[in-house]
Amino acid sequence: MTNRTHPLRPTPSPWQGRSSRLVQRQPCKPKRRRLVRSRRPRPPATLQIGDAGLSRKGRPRPPPGGRTEPRGKVTMSALLETHRGLLDAALDATRQRRPVPDFAVPATPIGITPKALQPLLDRPFELDGASGAARLGAEESPFGFALAITYPTAEASELQRRAEAARTGLARAGLALRTGIALETLVRLRAQAPLLAEALVHTTGAPASLAESSGVGSALQAALTATALAYEAQKRTPTSLLRPAVSDEPPRRLRFGYVPRGAALIRGTALQPIVTALPPLFANLVTANPTLVVPHPSAILPLALVVRVVRAVLAEAGIGPDAVQLGIETADTPLSRQLAALPAVRLVDHGGEAGFAAWLGANAPGTRGFAASSGVNPVVIDGTDDMDGLCHGLAYSLAAHSGQTPTRPQTLFVPADGIVTEQGHLSFEAVAAGLAQALDRLVAEPAAAIDLLGAIADPATLALFPRLQALGRIVAESRRLPVEGFAKARTATPLVLAVEATREAVYAPPQAGPIAFLVRTADTAESIERAAHGIAAHGAVLARVHSTNDHVVATAADAFTALGVSVGCNVTGAGEGFGEALDEAATWLDEGFVLDRMRLVAVHRPERG
Amino acid sequence: MTNRTHPLRPTPSPWQGRSSRLVQRQPCKPKRRRLVRSRRPRPPATLQIGDAGLSRKGRPRPPPGGRTEPRGKVTMSALLETHRGLLDAALDATRQRRPVPDFAVPATPIGITPKALQPLLDRPFELDGASGAARLGAEESPFGFALAITYPTAEASELQRRAEAARTGLARAGLALRTGIALETLVRLRAQAPLLAEALVHTTGAPASLAESSGVGSALQAALTATALAYEAQKRTPTSLLRPAVSDEPPRRLRFGYVPRGAALIRGTALQPIVTALPPLFANLVTANPTLVVPHPSAILPLALVVRVVRAVLAEAGIGPDAVQLGIETADTPLSRQLAALPAVRLVDHGGEAGFAAWLGANAPGTRGFAASSGVNPVVIDGTDDMDGLCHGLAYSLAAHSGQTPTRPQTLFVPADGIVTEQGHLSFEAVAAGLAQALDRLVAEPAAAIDLLGAIADPATLALFPRLQALGRIVAESRRLPVEGFAKARTATPLVLAVEATREAVYAPPQAGPIAFLVRTADTAESIERAAHGIAAHGAVLARVHSTNDHVVATAADAFTALGVSVGCNVTGAGEGFGEALDEAATWLDEGFVLDRMRLVAVHRPERG
Repeated sequence: MTNRTHPLRPTPSPWQGRSSRLVQRQPCKPKRRRLVRSRRPRPPATLQIGDAGLSRKGRPRPPPGGRTEPRGKVTMSALLETHRGLLDAALDATRQRRPVPDFAVPATPIGITPKALQPLLDRPFELDGASGAARLGAEESPFGFALAITYPTAEASELQRRAEAARTGLARAGLALRTGIALETLVRLRAQAPLLAEALVHTTGAPASLAESSGVGSALQAALTATALAYEAQKRTPTSLLRPAVSDEPPRRLRFGYVPRGAALIRGTALQPIVTALPPLFANLVTANPTLVVPHPSAILPLALVVRVVRAVLAEAGIGPDAVQLGIETADTPLSRQLAALPAVRLVDHGGEAGFAAWLGANAPGTRGFAASSGVNPVVIDGTDDMDGLCHGLAYSLAAHSGQTPTRPQTLFVPADGIVTEQGHLSFEAVAAGLAQALDRLVAEPAAAIDLLGAIADPATLALFPRLQALGRIVAESRRLPVEGFAKARTATPLVLAVEATREAVYAPPQAGPIAFLVRTADTAESIERAAHGIAAHGAVLARVHSTNDHVVATAADAFTALGVSVGCNVTGAGEGFGEALDEAATWLDEGFVLDRMRLVAVHRPERG
Repeated sequence: MTNRTHPLRPTPSPWQGRSSRLVQRQPCKPKRRRLVRSRRPRPPATLQIGDAGLSRKGRPRPPPGGRTEPRGKVTMSALLETHRGLLDAALDATRQRRPVPDFAVPATPIGITPKALQPLLDRPFELDGASGAARLGAEESPFGFALAITYPTAEASELQRRAEAARTGLARAGLALRTGIALETLVRLRAQAPLLAEALVHTTGAPASLAESSGVGSALQAALTATALAYEAQKRTPTSLLRPAVSDEPPRRLRFGYVPRGAALIRGTALQPIVTALPPLFANLVTANPTLVVPHPSAILPLALVVRVVRAVLAEAGIGPDAVQLGIETADTPLSRQLAALPAVRLVDHGGEAGFAAWLGANAPGTRGFAASSGVNPVVIDGTDDMDGLCHGLAYSLAAHSGQTPTRPQTLFVPADGIVTEQGHLSFEAVAAGLAQALDRLVAEPAAAIDLLGAIADPATLALFPRLQALGRIVAESRRLPVEGFAKARTATPLVLAVEATREAVYAPPQAGPIAFLVRTADTAESIERAAHGIAAHGAVLARVHSTNDHVVATAADAFTALGVSVGCNVTGAGEGFGEALDEAATWLDEGFVLDRMRLVAVHRPERG
């Protein structure tokens, strides 16, 4: 159904042809073991280093299956070969740090009224083979209705037991099959992009115009990158080496392989559940760490859909689906902390909340934590040769998803005596007026505005507005916009306040919603210094500088990159916002992200005569 | 002086010739800026991404200096070119996961009587340009005399201030110069190997026969690997990319570069101060993170010597020496915790003590911690075709450095009904007797024995012996051995106890000294299971299996590698021990070890006509 409404991109691409038969099937009712076409016994494990090559007799056998496939090659590699074109494109794109263009999700606008989502509402979510009779879930759409979906879940101990039981199968599957499973899952998720986008809209309040192309599309690209990195890291390892004799010791044969760390937890985020969960999920899958996905209580559905697809593919590939499990937490049952505290759980990906990070460090010091980015993103405005583009870009960034994502700008630094533009000198007041007008234009037509703003996920986000409004001069007022057919929708246009640069206590702390500050500084040098100070104190995902002076651009870029933050220079228009910003921020997705999920081990023995 | 006593390996190697002039100079009195041969202004920073390529005019300039050297190439690259041969050898060896043979430290035996060390005793340690009037230090040699050396130190805030001041210079030096500095430092440290070895002997009790070749030599190889990895990771990054136009947005020029995380702390260990500190020190240096080295209060001298050399090279290269600083902590001044708690300190390498790891997680959750390996190393004994070699290898491993290093075996699992050997079937008792005899032979001649045993670093290590002895049957008794000329030397031969497999509470917990348990199991299947259980509970650095049955070898290797532990199969003789074991354990030294010390950032701008 979703395939019919939103077909795959019509342009054929190398892998789509080959995988289409699998893609077009309904993933919810898999025939088990369908992908394993041979009755031959499964080959030895990728990571069973000791198995194949340690016989004393004759020369060593081929290296472990993770790097070549010693036996059962057709069986093991069939799925990977199906997606070879996609893998090669992903490896190439990853080396060049760019997305795979042909894998982009087509920007088919979805509506706010649930379509693909409708059949899932008001009933138990079906998750084939999931454990536990328990069901939890009480999500509310930010557009004002209860999803009334319940999800299967289980106690921490039961989830751990099942993850442990799935561990061996996942390791023995070998790198080729695990990579094939990852790619097949991504292709199926892409085919479900409209459904995933609707799920984002009605849990996170993501805007309908961006949820599919950016919310889902960026996540799929990042997951593809994680898959490629995890595959390549394991392929690059040397396999078998002969270390020459040392003094009177015989030469030694060493064989190397990566082994997974253990069970992994992904703690979902409330506002970007898919894009924060997919890279670790796919990295864990390809590195053979069984994964427990615990969504944020307010955004369960997007991750439940993802887990359902990956479990179906795992089952079809003949691996226990419990290599990826869903667990539900509520305010009363802190399942993610219960799981993180288990010794078997060695990897935790989370949203970076300071409280959770400190708890994790104290209670699971042997666990490797990966935190998603957060912080306060500054924009230094010194000048421009495209004033309209600058204002439109800023307004767009502030409005997109109502400023609830970690990539939106919060502090806009403008000198008190104004900026140089192609329209001549413009005062601080004129810059403020230009931004306010651009925001007005964006929200002039409510239906189109809502397609960009989306809705406010957390009611608490708006609670601070009255107090904040009193702390600055209002440049742009926040208004509630009506949403046709959704009378209880929680909406708000961005609030922009002008404040003096000295009032850091007002503008520096991170805000979670559609609030930005136009900060009046003495000059651009102070702007850069204040912005850098804010990054050092609170972190940032990205920074921006606008100037017609190359020296200013370079100084700002130096100051911000030195703090580990990527910088966009004179980026105007809609490209300022959301999806593009996410792509930049994805520089964290490097080899370290996957290598930390494995340990390299060696098996060695004397090589005698 | 040390060069004269212990000359460089006479065999010429490609880099020794070129660097010898620098190597043979006394490193303690450097002429400042000697390595910078040009008066030309220094080129722009490696990491100043914004500086060179962001001009709007014409095509982009060359990528940042970290990857090529856009200007001042001769000046910046001179030091690296001097060591190009060593770098190439290190890159090649790292890819093949083996040491650089020509860089091995010659196994010149040193004595226990201080020679190179003598001039340093009973006086303040000279550290050129180090901060602070404060002096601390109260090391005692395990051979029974006070070193009576004091070291300059400073408050945490002052060390941080100096690290911060050194940050920019280190980043601006560029990758080529930083790598050159690292290699020059390693060459000089190698020339000082005898002095470093004596420092190990009289702080950690390292055995004279192994301190230089293994204690220092392995550390230098690991540091060389870290240097090569950090260099290669930064060279591999793409430099400048043009991202094609998306919808109505212009194409974008993206430039990439790595930036350091911030200040780094290395918390020294008591027993392996050099081998645990050198890899992070060199990784931090090449990735441009200023480093604060805080040795363990009982083993300051080895790291003070290292810091002195690297500071000298930094100063000669025209970079502030404070990119690497020494700080001294005592029981009263927990300097390493004070430093780790500072927000500026983002990387902490430590020995893996559970208490410190938990403290770090709770008090510095945004800090990336790297823990050195520790645990309980098991040996599964099922059979052998070289009984004498097996017993000698085990005895050697137990005796080397009095079993105080994390690589020595602690639990030896033997079936109750004995093992198959080339001498026929041998009972459990016969295995115990064979091991006891091999230990007796090793310690028969006290002077030679002390050269292998060394001394006991911590008096508390021996305090447990009386209680433990009562818990098992004594297979080999621990004796104190006299050391000629060192009447107060703290020595002990290994204590080996036979215990039943069910008594895990006795043999499973990690022990810090010369204690091992011969564990009587029902059969080898139980041996493997108990050994794996111990690894899962307490960790391990490495594991061993001895069997003539390929299936047993494979089963054990699978079980232990699945837990992330490297395995040696049928390794007998002295190769069982110390240095070789360290080489294997060094599989943790992979790209992740260096990548986590940097962040990849991008600077991008629209590319217009």
